[in-house]
Amino acid sequence: MTPYEQLEKRFKRLSALGEAEAVLHWDMSAIMPRGGAEARAEQLAELKAVQHGLMTAPEMADLFNDAGEAGMDDWQPANLREMKRRWIKATALSEDLVVALSKACSVCETIWRTARAEADFAAVAPSLTEVLGLTRQAAQAKAEAQDLSLYDALLDDYEPDGRAADIDPVFDTLEEFLPDFLGSVLDAQASRPAPILPEGPFPEATQKALGIQFMEALGFDFDHGRLDISLHPFCGGTPDDVRITTRYDEADFTSSLMGVLHETGHALYERGLPKAWRGQPVGEALGMSIHESQSLLVEMQVCRSDGFLSYAAPLMRAAFDGSGAAWQADNLYRLYTRIKPDFIRVDADEVTYPAHVILRYRLERALIDGDMEVPDIPAAWNEGMQRMLGLTPPSDREGCLQDLHWYDGAWGYFPTYTLGAMTAAQLFAAAKTDEPLIEPGIAEGNFKPLFAWLRSHVHSQGSLLSAKDLLVEATGKPLDPEVFKAHLTTRYLA
Amino acid sequence: MTPYEQLEKRFKRLSALGEAEAVLHWDMSAIMPRGGAEARAEQLAELKAVQHGLMTAPEMADLFNDAGEAGMDDWQPANLREMKRRWIKATALSEDLVVALSKACSVCETIWRTARAEADFAAVAPSLTEVLGLTRQAAQAKAEAQDLSLYDALLDDYEPDGRAADIDPVFDTLEEFLPDFLGSVLDAQASRPAPILPEGPFPEATQKALGIQFMEALGFDFDHGRLDISLHPFCGGTPDDVRITTRYDEADFTSSLMGVLHETGHALYERGLPKAWRGQPVGEALGMSIHESQSLLVEMQVCRSDGFLSYAAPLMRAAFDGSGAAWQADNLYRLYTRIKPDFIRVDADEVTYPAHVILRYRLERALIDGDMEVPDIPAAWNEGMQRMLGLTPPSDREGCLQDLHWYDGAWGYFPTYTLGAMTAAQLFAAAKTDEPLIEPGIAEGNFKPLFAWLRSHVHSQGSLLSAKDLLVEATGKPLDPEVFKAHLTTRYLA
Repeated sequence: MTPYEQLEKRFKRLSALGEAEAVLHWDMSAIMPRGGAEARAEQLAELKAVQHGLMTAPEMADLFNDAGEAGMDDWQPANLREMKRRWIKATALSEDLVVALSKACSVCETIWRTARAEADFAAVAPSLTEVLGLTRQAAQAKAEAQDLSLYDALLDDYEPDGRAADIDPVFDTLEEFLPDFLGSVLDAQASRPAPILPEGPFPEATQKALGIQFMEALGFDFDHGRLDISLHPFCGGTPDDVRITTRYDEADFTSSLMGVLHETGHALYERGLPKAWRGQPVGEALGMSIHESQSLLVEMQVCRSDGFLSYAAPLMRAAFDGSGAAWQADNLYRLYTRIKPDFIRVDADEVTYPAHVILRYRLERALIDGDMEVPDIPAAWNEGMQRMLGLTPPSDREGCLQDLHWYDGAWGYFPTYTLGAMTAAQLFAAAKTDEPLIEPGIAEGNFKPLFAWLRSHVHSQGSLLSAKDLLVEATGKPLDPEVFKAHLTTRYLA
Repeated sequence: MTPYEQLEKRFKRLSALGEAEAVLHWDMSAIMPRGGAEARAEQLAELKAVQHGLMTAPEMADLFNDAGEAGMDDWQPANLREMKRRWIKATALSEDLVVALSKACSVCETIWRTARAEADFAAVAPSLTEVLGLTRQAAQAKAEAQDLSLYDALLDDYEPDGRAADIDPVFDTLEEFLPDFLGSVLDAQASRPAPILPEGPFPEATQKALGIQFMEALGFDFDHGRLDISLHPFCGGTPDDVRITTRYDEADFTSSLMGVLHETGHALYERGLPKAWRGQPVGEALGMSIHESQSLLVEMQVCRSDGFLSYAAPLMRAAFDGSGAAWQADNLYRLYTRIKPDFIRVDADEVTYPAHVILRYRLERALIDGDMEVPDIPAAWNEGMQRMLGLTPPSDREGCLQDLHWYDGAWGYFPTYTLGAMTAAQLFAAAKTDEPLIEPGIAEGNFKPLFAWLRSHVHSQGSLLSAKDLLVEATGKPLDPEVFKAHLTTRYLA
């Protein structure tokens, strides 16, 4: 075997172990009995340790040194690039730092749960300071290994080749646009009838059957996936066995159903990844912004559209045997596009969501770069919320304590949510231009034209290109905030 | 760390990886969508390869050489013994032989599925000959490494320290006893009223709820386990997360319910294993005969007894809202102790089951020792069935093609079923003598006295002793066929 072939074999093993880990994670979140937690943590830790050992084994440096690109298939240089990215990241941190960071995050997460419940930021601040300090150290080590700035070194873990220098102008544009736009949207909304929430109860089994009906219509293949329940909905499993979860509220089916459609977008991306490159880094999903673009394209661009809801409303009404104005497509459209500035990110609509993300992005950059320290967070948070959404959280529980991310060490993740929303808008706009059958298809429940386009321009690409290059290939230009602005303007002010 | 401590660390990792594998196996059998099969096989194969690599790494020989017993806790010498047993087995076979055997079994299993359906032994004979040849080679290698006979080397994989020389006299006694005894039982049965099968339908949800009710009564803790559905019922998962499965027949609840109770016996053994030795070989279940003794003790000794059924009958009747003679405890007892010689092992009652096992044991010993070849199997099988049960299978489908074991490479497994049944009888007899509250407890649905005895004499022992020594410690003597004979005589002829 050539050095490159040896690397492929090694990464295939790493992929299989990573898939095993993914199934165990899904199991833990969806169906594991409580008493299995301790042993499961042990299983996952040992699996991680084995993977780390395989990745950082002494022979790896030689293999990377000796792996030449001569005679490679056209996708293999990109595979070698992605292998190397992972290997550099894995070897950049000392084992001591990895262990210290992992422990600090575990401790901080535990304290955070109580601190959030009691709205007591001071209680978690020392522990968060510890996490931040170790995260800065990790960023420093990764930045040196990859020749990146501190923040970019963290961002790169979630968004390969993502750079703050590309994000800044995009977020600046949004930040300037949104406050006035939000005012206009709220005025316009006030002039329309208030949406009516359909009245339940909505039995769980019926909600599940309806979710499955829409999943199948979108193209989800239950021979290669499942729908289950978990406290925090997610898309897990593996490309050939994609498992999404939701939770049901028998008083309101609308939120769970839209959550199912969102996760279906993630799932169809995983299913559409190139089979020929399965088990290799280049065959995996590209990064968080593209992943989120696929869920948000399905949720925000497609399923909250009037076209989709004109198709879906009669099916919803029939499933729950509903009657009256609440079940009209126009009411459901107003319900699913209602804008309401709020303190909580995960409950936010698509107009106010970017404000939550931009705030967190500004703060985490300053914190990583050392321009701000942990005790400064609450005041800076509340000032940003007031400036962007005109709200001041009643306490830190609804403010800087609401998200797990920082407390659990996930720094550099937040921007990918809004990059994903904007990418979704840009991909959908290009798809509709390329393929005129997409929009009429959606209104009839025929999603084949849409997914044919997504398969060919996004899913089948794996990690061949960077997110930026993929977007240029698929839409003719890099991320352009004007497309997202146009989408919002058309939907909310037209 | 001392060499022994390094071994403990290595085996803890192996245990965690083995647990991960067990959860993935459970998932595959119980809930995995069909399309996940190929990727799952890859995940399991890589997990196996990683474990094999850790077990056979060059430093292991040195660690075993250097591991002294000085200063050890009292359980650690046994742990070292069990570690070494596994290491010797893992290193005995060349990788080529392991791969060849694994492939031959996969091929043979596939051909067997068709051959069985078509009752065509000749179709699978060449493939079975290949499996047998490789199994003999493996037996040879293991026999040399462990200084055992060929058959004992295979048996030892399922029954550590199990020896044909111990089994032979026991099975000889049974073989002599059973034919006449069976005749007497059938005569006695004919003189009693025929049992009435309660009439359904029995909704699956109600069957599940009733199963859970009995599982909880026996002591199954749903914080540490689950009950699900699979085609072939089994007990899987891990000691802290034990997962049993069943399948439901809406026309007849009795078989599924007894299956659930059987698997609960396995599960309670796993749950009762010593927590302090978790993750080490000595902390694991002892072998197949003890494992099967725990399921059969619950099923055959306890749950098919008139005491248990006098407690359970009203609960069954209430669950299904039944009425009439079919729901009387005495009818259910006759139903659950009905004897019927048949061709199929898995459907056999406890009187005829040993005949099925003894036949397979005699044949597989001759085949492994080279005293018989594959083409001789059908005639020898049918002769044995006629001699022991007075039946000749109408075709090989109901004869030598019925069980997967040989075709899948599981040679040396069969005797553990009947050793387990006999061990169950002997343990239960000793327990009742030691603790007079056990039998009245069962009739009232109080299983605490029984499981207190089993925890202390069996479950908490892990793999500290051999099955033979455990039985001597718990019952005062090695396996004694007279105890099993006495149990059968009391139940079926008293």
